[in-house]
Amino acid sequence: MGKSSCSRKKEDLVCYAYDATARTYLPDAVVFPGNTEEISAILNLADSEGFFVIPRGSGSGMTGGSLAVSGGVILVMARFNRILEIDKGNLIAHVEPGVVTGHFHRAVERVGLFYPPDPSSSEFSSLGGNMAECAGGPRAVKYGVTRDYVLGLEAVLSTGEIIHTGVQTSKGVVGYDLTRLLIGSEGTLGIITKITLRLLPLPEDVKAMTAVFDKLDTAAEAVSEVIRRGIIPRTIEFMDNASIRCAESRLKIGLPVEAEALLLIEVDGKLQETETLINQLKTVCISSGATGIKIAESKEEIENLWKARKAISPALFQYAPDKINEDIVVPRSKIPDMVRKINSLKEETGLTMVSFGHAGDGNIHFNIMLDKKNKTELKKAEYAIDVLFDYTLELGGTISGEHGVGITKAAYIEKEIGSVELNLMKKIKKVFDPKGILNPGKIFPTL
Amino acid sequence: MGKSSCSRKKEDLVCYAYDATARTYLPDAVVFPGNTEEISAILNLADSEGFFVIPRGSGSGMTGGSLAVSGGVILVMARFNRILEIDKGNLIAHVEPGVVTGHFHRAVERVGLFYPPDPSSSEFSSLGGNMAECAGGPRAVKYGVTRDYVLGLEAVLSTGEIIHTGVQTSKGVVGYDLTRLLIGSEGTLGIITKITLRLLPLPEDVKAMTAVFDKLDTAAEAVSEVIRRGIIPRTIEFMDNASIRCAESRLKIGLPVEAEALLLIEVDGKLQETETLINQLKTVCISSGATGIKIAESKEEIENLWKARKAISPALFQYAPDKINEDIVVPRSKIPDMVRKINSLKEETGLTMVSFGHAGDGNIHFNIMLDKKNKTELKKAEYAIDVLFDYTLELGGTISGEHGVGITKAAYIEKEIGSVELNLMKKIKKVFDPKGILNPGKIFPTL
Repeated sequence: MGKSSCSRKKEDLVCYAYDATARTYLPDAVVFPGNTEEISAILNLADSEGFFVIPRGSGSGMTGGSLAVSGGVILVMARFNRILEIDKGNLIAHVEPGVVTGHFHRAVERVGLFYPPDPSSSEFSSLGGNMAECAGGPRAVKYGVTRDYVLGLEAVLSTGEIIHTGVQTSKGVVGYDLTRLLIGSEGTLGIITKITLRLLPLPEDVKAMTAVFDKLDTAAEAVSEVIRRGIIPRTIEFMDNASIRCAESRLKIGLPVEAEALLLIEVDGKLQETETLINQLKTVCISSGATGIKIAESKEEIENLWKARKAISPALFQYAPDKINEDIVVPRSKIPDMVRKINSLKEETGLTMVSFGHAGDGNIHFNIMLDKKNKTELKKAEYAIDVLFDYTLELGGTISGEHGVGITKAAYIEKEIGSVELNLMKKIKKVFDPKGILNPGKIFPTL
Repeated sequence: MGKSSCSRKKEDLVCYAYDATARTYLPDAVVFPGNTEEISAILNLADSEGFFVIPRGSGSGMTGGSLAVSGGVILVMARFNRILEIDKGNLIAHVEPGVVTGHFHRAVERVGLFYPPDPSSSEFSSLGGNMAECAGGPRAVKYGVTRDYVLGLEAVLSTGEIIHTGVQTSKGVVGYDLTRLLIGSEGTLGIITKITLRLLPLPEDVKAMTAVFDKLDTAAEAVSEVIRRGIIPRTIEFMDNASIRCAESRLKIGLPVEAEALLLIEVDGKLQETETLINQLKTVCISSGATGIKIAESKEEIENLWKARKAISPALFQYAPDKINEDIVVPRSKIPDMVRKINSLKEETGLTMVSFGHAGDGNIHFNIMLDKKNKTELKKAEYAIDVLFDYTLELGGTISGEHGVGITKAAYIEKEIGSVELNLMKKIKKVFDPKGILNPGKIFPTL
């Protein structure tokens, strides 16, 4: 590895000190390895010298997974940017982790294939980051999440040893499932350097519609009704009033700013099938109380709807300088309960709260907008998160559907994971990384 | 736990000394626990007294997973036979591990839902056994395998501690994926006592067809062509000539006993969709060289085809008293290569070899029929397996798609799993079961 591939200059370090949490931690150095052997050499050195190594994809993580919270070397995976093979006969692809997810989507779609996982960050997040966090996204309703599309991995252990896990086929049961142990481990068990992904044939047609509701509750009931009727759209996104206003102020595309809730529903399949499905959905939404239905008439119209949906998160800062962003999940049928709880918390605290997300799988992106310098607001926000997490778990949900634990949820992990289970996880961490040099300070409250 | 729930009588022990490998190992005792707490108490005792505990579902395993190879107590899970809840609104079910898979299929289908994993043993194998082995089955082509439908587990550790893993929702990324670490761990990491499964809406229609081929090679090429055209049937099963004869001699339903290969293809979906798909498949098969196509005209006809398919494995003993049964997987496009290799091995050794299985995902059930008392035959068979496994791995495949390693493949695991990876697995085993009391002698060549 040449000298140009490593830097300790302040101006380089600050470029890799942030992520989407808006917290910053200056690393001691940043390196840009070009292949697996270089990473192995770096970890070998880290193992003997005892410095921390923090893998980093595109730095778009929501929970601090790629931050050097205790110093150390940031391993920037950007040079691992090759799609090595798209194998149409076997419906698989071999890729490097630095490939941007959206770029990969387009590459496989050009040859008639489909990679379903689509985190909202897909235009800038990388596949490796998606693996580390087990990214989800809107299409999970029908297609599941990242783990469901990973067949095998190459990874480098903290000792510098290179391992190969899993298989290249959809079946394979030889030994323990190290592949899915690495998926979602947030860079704490190994550095992923190669990925074998499962692909599907590209659906023939996609149709989208929006349904407007006077009440958030009614929208939530409509979602439950869709599932109860056995209809599985590929996405059922929802936006509350604050989200709609946010997106509209940014994009000016005529969103219904008076509505309390908007559902954005997409279906895919054969042409005949999407036609039938969208009509069924229209009927269900109307009978559930939708006050307006609009079926998108062109690809551009669908794209605009998604632009609106994806604009919400960055546009939220118009409400306040700081954002606390959670991605709780509740069983789909419990969404109405959760919506009521959020409304009561809003009233109780007087804080600006914005909810949107993947209603189809019960995954709600809940945001509190505040000024963190205002201690009263911060305290209220912390109280609200606490109540929200407890209620999420009471409803049978989880405190993170797709963002991971990182540093922002580490203090809460014991709410969800029992001490025996957490202890098993800590011991697994020790098996993979006995000296604790890989991405320290993440997931576990103390290690 | 009452006295009636435990036995050391010889006549009871022999009932739990076998599985589908036809090897027998007499346990020291057999217990029939009725709830999680009883299992916890047994493991507590095992932990302090140092005896082995071997969990057992229906004893239909193909690799010896439920055999007491080193003595110990067989934990019969048959009393864990309740479907606790089928939750239509959230498309999930909570079940106990002793529920027979086929019984569960029918229970969810009665309320319009669908549990895709369908090992050929489904009429007698249990869901817990399916979890332990990560069972597959014909429908994996379209729907994936057991691990893709498990959301969460309750399990008892070797210390008697009870753990809860995973979530009840399709998304969930808090902490390491202990759920999928337990799935496929063959009872060596913990005893599964409760399972949360993901369900789908029941497909509206199912259609089936058979395609007859003069050459096995041509049939294999047809399978590849189906996938290349982006058609995903829910099953693509194949039978070679010996399998066809076997099934026909047993069932007498008019199977084409002169054909070198038969494909049994099933599609599902909306009525319009299955119509289109089956016609597309007919076209592809004919243009690939099928000499006869038959579309099943009734539910009974479909059922008969499956009876034929499922009759093969038990009917094989008409060829010889012993069977060596492997379930290799190769990338779908490599099936023709594997078929040629099997043919050449047949010629070289002169042994009776029968192949059938899940062509759609490259999963071939390869059987050598022999008399194990004939040392020459046995030696030839061992040579053939060795060559077959090496070639499977050379083609990018795996030596087990759904049967697991157990005792029969333990000697071969190092062909597929590297020493660093195997070492990680052994250390994980130590984390979960420090004293090595859970299902000893399985998976690892030596532990």
